[in-house]
Amino acid sequence: MIINANLNWLQQAVKKPNEKTRCAAQAHQLQLTKPPGSLGKLEETAIQLAALQGCEKPQAEKVFISIFAGDHGVAEEGVSAFPQAVTAEMVKNFARGGAAISVLAKQLGATLEVINLGTAFDTGELPGVLQCNLGKGTANFVREAAMTEDQLAASLQAGSNSAAHAEKIGAQLYIGGEMGIANTTAAAALACALLQKSPQQLAGPGTGLDQDGVQRKAEVVARALALHETYLGEPLEVLRRLGGFEIAALAGAFIGCAQRGIPVLVDGYITTVAALLAVRIHPGVADWLLFAHRSAEPGHILMLEALQAEPLLNLSMRLGEGSGAATAVPLLRLACALHNNMATFAEAGVSDKL
Amino acid sequence: MIINANLNWLQQAVKKPNEKTRCAAQAHQLQLTKPPGSLGKLEETAIQLAALQGCEKPQAEKVFISIFAGDHGVAEEGVSAFPQAVTAEMVKNFARGGAAISVLAKQLGATLEVINLGTAFDTGELPGVLQCNLGKGTANFVREAAMTEDQLAASLQAGSNSAAHAEKIGAQLYIGGEMGIANTTAAAALACALLQKSPQQLAGPGTGLDQDGVQRKAEVVARALALHETYLGEPLEVLRRLGGFEIAALAGAFIGCAQRGIPVLVDGYITTVAALLAVRIHPGVADWLLFAHRSAEPGHILMLEALQAEPLLNLSMRLGEGSGAATAVPLLRLACALHNNMATFAEAGVSDKL
Repeated sequence: MIINANLNWLQQAVKKPNEKTRCAAQAHQLQLTKPPGSLGKLEETAIQLAALQGCEKPQAEKVFISIFAGDHGVAEEGVSAFPQAVTAEMVKNFARGGAAISVLAKQLGATLEVINLGTAFDTGELPGVLQCNLGKGTANFVREAAMTEDQLAASLQAGSNSAAHAEKIGAQLYIGGEMGIANTTAAAALACALLQKSPQQLAGPGTGLDQDGVQRKAEVVARALALHETYLGEPLEVLRRLGGFEIAALAGAFIGCAQRGIPVLVDGYITTVAALLAVRIHPGVADWLLFAHRSAEPGHILMLEALQAEPLLNLSMRLGEGSGAATAVPLLRLACALHNNMATFAEAGVSDKL
Repeated sequence: MIINANLNWLQQAVKKPNEKTRCAAQAHQLQLTKPPGSLGKLEETAIQLAALQGCEKPQAEKVFISIFAGDHGVAEEGVSAFPQAVTAEMVKNFARGGAAISVLAKQLGATLEVINLGTAFDTGELPGVLQCNLGKGTANFVREAAMTEDQLAASLQAGSNSAAHAEKIGAQLYIGGEMGIANTTAAAALACALLQKSPQQLAGPGTGLDQDGVQRKAEVVARALALHETYLGEPLEVLRRLGGFEIAALAGAFIGCAQRGIPVLVDGYITTVAALLAVRIHPGVADWLLFAHRSAEPGHILMLEALQAEPLLNLSMRLGEGSGAATAVPLLRLACALHNNMATFAEAGVSDKL
């Protein structure tokens, strides 16, 4: 595939972190009334946010969460523990406030938007849900490319639109989440293609496959890789052939956030493969990514290693929906509060050395 | 030492977790709109809190934090990167709101009380700080027992009083923190005695010792263990000889919480050795302990293993003051919110299997 003219925005420059505020934040941490480094990753997180927000007093109060939903043709290969109807059912559950991410967003006071890119079952119009109608799910990638060029372009654009929306409300942090039955199979196939790993290394239980199910999933991924083998040299084409609407949207959102200077908190297995795609498409995106958690899905660690990512949490979560990222938000907020509000040695009259 | 009559309260019965609400919480988790187990440790935490609070809808909103401060005679052996004056200086910093735990408590809306058991330098009267005046720190335990029997009894009692205070305000969660220059040396000595480990396995950099400093610290611990060798069979006597005021108070607080049925969120290295002492004194205390984080102090893992503890966080924190436990509070709150507020499959009309 030659990249369409309407995908040129993907290559537009991303913002650069502010090295001046990074240095100021580092120096400030050394003045706070604690042994240097004793707040561990909370210190690193505050310093990173100071650089990304170009601000000596970073914040993570205004959090914008987009959940992208889409179905996957490969579901017909029997690669999920749940029926395909669940994608649309869960979109309704997001809208009604009953899903994990709905509860988490409410607790955090975060803005939550839901974007239905294309589900196999109709959800009808729902309050708070943007309907994109790109198709009744992707095509089954063991037979053909998952997406047409137009579907790929529209999915990426939907992600960028979401980043623009986050910018408009002044978001200090962006979280992307996903819902799509069989999307761990798509993510595994993408990761195999991008990381040159075997399906056995990337295919995992997802929502709850048994050992035979995981084996079947790995075989499905192997068939897909064999079919598309000669076209896997270029990340956008990898995404079009093996990805999904929601994964493309997440990649587009992450690129859009980096272009707008919005820090991204990356969720789990599916979202991390979207982050990997975004970085392969535009390496400067990497600066804008913070990683929330290590998923229980075994292959996640390989993606994290490829991104040199050290996530904050490791709670054996494997739900998706952005739930792991949302769970890490309070850590960012506490990191900022400590950075911004602790007394310095001088202010408190505390001895800072022997 | 024969246990004094005034320590008899230590052996009074502890409450039992409610197995009925535990089972109800487990069953409820399986009905929520997510793959079973996909919220990982957040599910386990909600279920554990349901059992401890005897309540199908657990909560961690009312959090009570006690910080116990005390000095250590062993500081004169040069085992800390900071001067002894810092203990009293930090008590003032707690009172003024500039310390890490002050900032965290405020962010969490938690009640924070500070108990100065005995510092080498006078702090004067301070708002919100209870002054116990048990001495100008403990005795140097490389020469003699750290505490007299009366000091031990008073420290344990101060902890129990704190648990009573938490009960009075209706706390749903108790956090104990500590401040005391050289208290990682005391904690290392206690852990060596309780776990039959070598000083090299337990002595670490603490607030920031270099390699020579850690070696010196291990030698100090070895001298203490040799001096007290024949008296280390009984946990209260181990605590009296090698402990500190704040460590004894923490152990007393944890026992007091278990007797009153208040869940405890255990902090890091020092606090975990107090938890270990509490469990050795009264094994039923173990049911009431949740573990917040794995400290960067290398020996912490050995204590955690002895308690079969799997902490929620691993953020390379090593500050003490209860800061690691406070940082984990939002995870407990989110775990409760998910447990209490997510829709069930039936409520949401979501298919729960193929």
